[in-house]
Amino acid sequence: MPIDPQEFADLPAVDVHCHPFLNRGALDAETFTNVASFGGGSQAYMEQGGVAFTDDIRHELQGLKRDTLYFRRMVRDLAAYFGVAPTLDAVLEARNAAVAEGYSDYVRDLYADANLTTLVMDFGYPVPNLDVAQVSAELPVEVVPVYRIEPLIVELLRADIGWDEFERRYIDTLADALASGAFRGLKTVIAYRTGLDISPLSRTRDQGYQALDAIRRGLGGGSMKKLRDHLVCRALELSMEYDRPMQIHTGMGDFEVNLPLCRPSFLMDLLRFPTFRACRVILVHTGYPYHGEAAYMANVLPRVYCDISEGTPFAGHAARRIISEVLEMAPPSKVLYGSDGFGVPEINYTSAKLGREALAGALDDIVAAGMLDRADVRAIAGGILGANARRIYRLD
Amino acid sequence: MPIDPQEFADLPAVDVHCHPFLNRGALDAETFTNVASFGGGSQAYMEQGGVAFTDDIRHELQGLKRDTLYFRRMVRDLAAYFGVAPTLDAVLEARNAAVAEGYSDYVRDLYADANLTTLVMDFGYPVPNLDVAQVSAELPVEVVPVYRIEPLIVELLRADIGWDEFERRYIDTLADALASGAFRGLKTVIAYRTGLDISPLSRTRDQGYQALDAIRRGLGGGSMKKLRDHLVCRALELSMEYDRPMQIHTGMGDFEVNLPLCRPSFLMDLLRFPTFRACRVILVHTGYPYHGEAAYMANVLPRVYCDISEGTPFAGHAARRIISEVLEMAPPSKVLYGSDGFGVPEINYTSAKLGREALAGALDDIVAAGMLDRADVRAIAGGILGANARRIYRLD
Amino acid sequence: MPIDPQEFADLPAVDVHCHPFLNRGALDAETFTNVASFGGGSQAYMEQGGVAFTDDIRHELQGLKRDTLYFRRMVRDLAAYFGVAPTLDAVLEARNAAVAEGYSDYVRDLYADANLTTLVMDFGYPVPNLDVAQVSAELPVEVVPVYRIEPLIVELLRADIGWDEFERRYIDTLADALASGAFRGLKTVIAYRTGLDISPLSRTRDQGYQALDAIRRGLGGGSMKKLRDHLVCRALELSMEYDRPMQIHTGMGDFEVNLPLCRPSFLMDLLRFPTFRACRVILVHTGYPYHGEAAYMANVLPRVYCDISEGTPFAGHAARRIISEVLEMAPPSKVLYGSDGFGVPEINYTSAKLGREALAGALDDIVAAGMLDRADVRAIAGGILGANARRIYRLD
Repeated sequence: MPIDPQEFADLPAVDVHCHPFLNRGALDAETFTNVASFGGGSQAYMEQGGVAFTDDIRHELQGLKRDTLYFRRMVRDLAAYFGVAPTLDAVLEARNAAVAEGYSDYVRDLYADANLTTLVMDFGYPVPNLDVAQVSAELPVEVVPVYRIEPLIVELLRADIGWDEFERRYIDTLADALASGAFRGLKTVIAYRTGLDISPLSRTRDQGYQALDAIRRGLGGGSMKKLRDHLVCRALELSMEYDRPMQIHTGMGDFEVNLPLCRPSFLMDLLRFPTFRACRVILVHTGYPYHGEAAYMANVLPRVYCDISEGTPFAGHAARRIISEVLEMAPPSKVLYGSDGFGVPEINYTSAKLGREALAGALDDIVAAGMLDRADVRAIAGGILGANARRIYRLD
Repeated sequence: MPIDPQEFADLPAVDVHCHPFLNRGALDAETFTNVASFGGGSQAYMEQGGVAFTDDIRHELQGLKRDTLYFRRMVRDLAAYFGVAPTLDAVLEARNAAVAEGYSDYVRDLYADANLTTLVMDFGYPVPNLDVAQVSAELPVEVVPVYRIEPLIVELLRADIGWDEFERRYIDTLADALASGAFRGLKTVIAYRTGLDISPLSRTRDQGYQALDAIRRGLGGGSMKKLRDHLVCRALELSMEYDRPMQIHTGMGDFEVNLPLCRPSFLMDLLRFPTFRACRVILVHTGYPYHGEAAYMANVLPRVYCDISEGTPFAGHAARRIISEVLEMAPPSKVLYGSDGFGVPEINYTSAKLGREALAGALDDIVAAGMLDRADVRAIAGGILGANARRIYRLD
Repeated sequence: MPIDPQEFADLPAVDVHCHPFLNRGALDAETFTNVASFGGGSQAYMEQGGVAFTDDIRHELQGLKRDTLYFRRMVRDLAAYFGVAPTLDAVLEARNAAVAEGYSDYVRDLYADANLTTLVMDFGYPVPNLDVAQVSAELPVEVVPVYRIEPLIVELLRADIGWDEFERRYIDTLADALASGAFRGLKTVIAYRTGLDISPLSRTRDQGYQALDAIRRGLGGGSMKKLRDHLVCRALELSMEYDRPMQIHTGMGDFEVNLPLCRPSFLMDLLRFPTFRACRVILVHTGYPYHGEAAYMANVLPRVYCDISEGTPFAGHAARRIISEVLEMAPPSKVLYGSDGFGVPEINYTSAKLGREALAGALDDIVAAGMLDRADVRAIAGGILGANARRIYRLD
């Protein structure tokens, strides 16, 4: 008896990695495409490249965005939800009508259809950061804020302060974010900046002093990397002190990610270092397309976890493959569902639909391969969809 | 209703990356094996390694070449075409008889059977380079020549000239190749040489001057890499000026490829640099086995494309997996069929058969996964098989 | 007609890479879990990280180990073998009873059920090393010892000797191991130490002298890497001199592996260097999760082989995928079955069951994809399961 995604319909989904958004009202096709798609470039991207943004170029980019299997899938999912034809125009007409009748009600119904109950949100994106209270008030589901260290680093670099004050404000701000309960964990996107090859020796505060001093004096010479590496180590220490998970971006991102240095394997030396072994670290995006590395690390490092977001939904039919390949090595209790949704509520929705379906498919394959008792499937599915995240983030 | 490869039989195939060849007449089994196989070593390889090329060694190497699933498949495809037993001897007997009756007619019928209408050929291999007119005259299909920069670099390095003349001849030759219409695009195999980690800053002509000067003075010190990096940047600039695609080898090649530095991800910094954003870049071989990187880049970089050649056909049953995994992220309109065929017409033939079949299989899986409307399949298949290449190379 | 694993039941399996073990008698659930699982951390790991090993932590780690799909599968396989319920307790009760009745008989019956006839064992692990004669006497199957170079390097580094004596003892010990027939090949785990980016120039004995001298004088500066690289080159030379295979660990290992530098691609420059072309090199673990690189190298380098151990069985359902993806490029005659089993006989058993099943599944897929004659399947399966290893190790 193959596994029907409907079997998991009553298992609540926790989206362990996404970004806050506010009601944008009605959206036209071009705006919706720009917001809800992934990749395909932008007007700014082309113009910075000296390409005049003619109608032809606009059309080319819109076409690319709508051409991905992810975007096609989202349109189909929404068409099925609204009961309209599977075209972007029909979907948007229904969507905008629903939003006009009440945004929160629209989102409530949409997320109820996907049994999506909880959003763990990295408030460090978009920039400028959205207000936690406002987002939480507007969204009719449980919102769990996570604090990203990079906007704070930008702010402290801009201030005219030396290391003592920099360090004090950095530590105090993070500690307060965690101690107050306002944020349930930390996050870093150093993979977008200087990369993941972080030496565990970077944790000495001397490195922070030396690096900031060199930056202030305009010396360069890798100072920024030294500073960032140090600050990530300090954030890991605070995560342990407050017993909260640390999310580390690994693998794919937008066009600005440091692709050669975003592979999870670069984190091995750091995470297996005795000092950091107690830290619960979530490898965001499970490093896709390097998810084999993340899964391996989740196997041999007892406090390392895999979040399947961004591959689900933006890599389309990859979702099933990613889940299956991650489960080759990662204990199922360390695998977490997520979407990396942003901007509009529809991304989280289609991701939850796709993720639930891909999970059923992957587990079906694994049972068929004689690797798993059929009776164990539901507990594993419930864990990946939400229970594992609830346990790690202590949400109950 | 599963997708039958026959549904795509009337969609013409453009082989977006292959190499020219001339009629070699009748071929015995050993010669055909050496020419039409991939890998498995050679007499020169073993003798350079101090291994006497005894009959045992010859037999070992012939066995390895015929043992690959790719070679077995080619024999089966040709056996089916000729209606003979699926053995190499039977196939070669039929093949040589057909060639004896007229080479061009043989190739015409063969390619008609695979509906292969166009070969985009990199004339930089084999060395010495074949004559475009002669190859075009002999082949009964559309031939689209592409100009590889490396033989020109070799020639200019051998000449007793300084940077001014080197640069002038380099630019003039490439510009003329494109402006005259003799060649429809450029190609680089720097992944076989100094690797793909090319800084966009390499484009300053000062780097060309400095590097060639150091080479001429015998200074070494990475000068050759600096020169090659600069010349690739200049080729990209010319590609933009003449609005022609640039093919960049990524991923697997023969045993001489720079494997640690052939991953597409090393190109990110270069290709997203504003200066080069307008350039249409084809990631040749879609970086297999690092095709996940290439597909990601084709998603986030609006002018980057994936060519599935070499994996198809030389990685055998990988073809279906490669297409499927590339379509996880690359917009279908940016995926191009190719073979990397060389030496004999049969490689391009079996590749086109396999590619069409693999494409049907991959799209069938994707439709079954609920990611794609069945009605959209034919347009996507037609694009990948040929229409995308015709558009990018402006062949119509 | 799909391929039933039973078709291959009479094909003897050679486990081309595993580790020796002795009868440990009855095992309780916690001990068995610790010994027979993979990953999940240990008491020492946590305590070094400053985490008190409370019952909660003990429970957490035991849970992780038993949670992997590999461990679940092993319990199911053993339950089926013993005809008991698929729980760890039931399996261990049956297992301990069987061991109590006679360890060698237990292992004989167990391995007969999997038609596992031969274990090629790396005696360099566990440490302290087990006695070859004792292990061979206790195990009722063919034992083929392989000599690992690293324990010898440790011993020579501890001795108060200069390069002349170091080199003499290193070469004499390895030569004697091979010449005497006591060991049938060499092995290195340099991927756990300084990594696989070994320059072929490292083979000059001057590098050995220089590196050991620097180590003795406490200079550091990469001396240990230089020494290790040199000693691997010398071992490759001895492998050629005595015409025995060299096993090189690539890819995944335990948490101590040098993950960024364990990729097989780093070996390209070394293995294609003329001096080493004659050496038969087995890429242990086929570099999983970088097995695409290993398969490619087995294609283009005529004396390089892929051993699928460790992925089979520790990556669970990956076994079928690994075999299929390795066969994309590696000639089937260069693919070798192995388990990386250690500690208890049950790992080798479940691995052989899983490997045979995965092989049938992978070949079934390949036949279905039209890449292989059904009639060729049995010869390929027999080769991968054992005949290829017997040929390469000249076991008959």
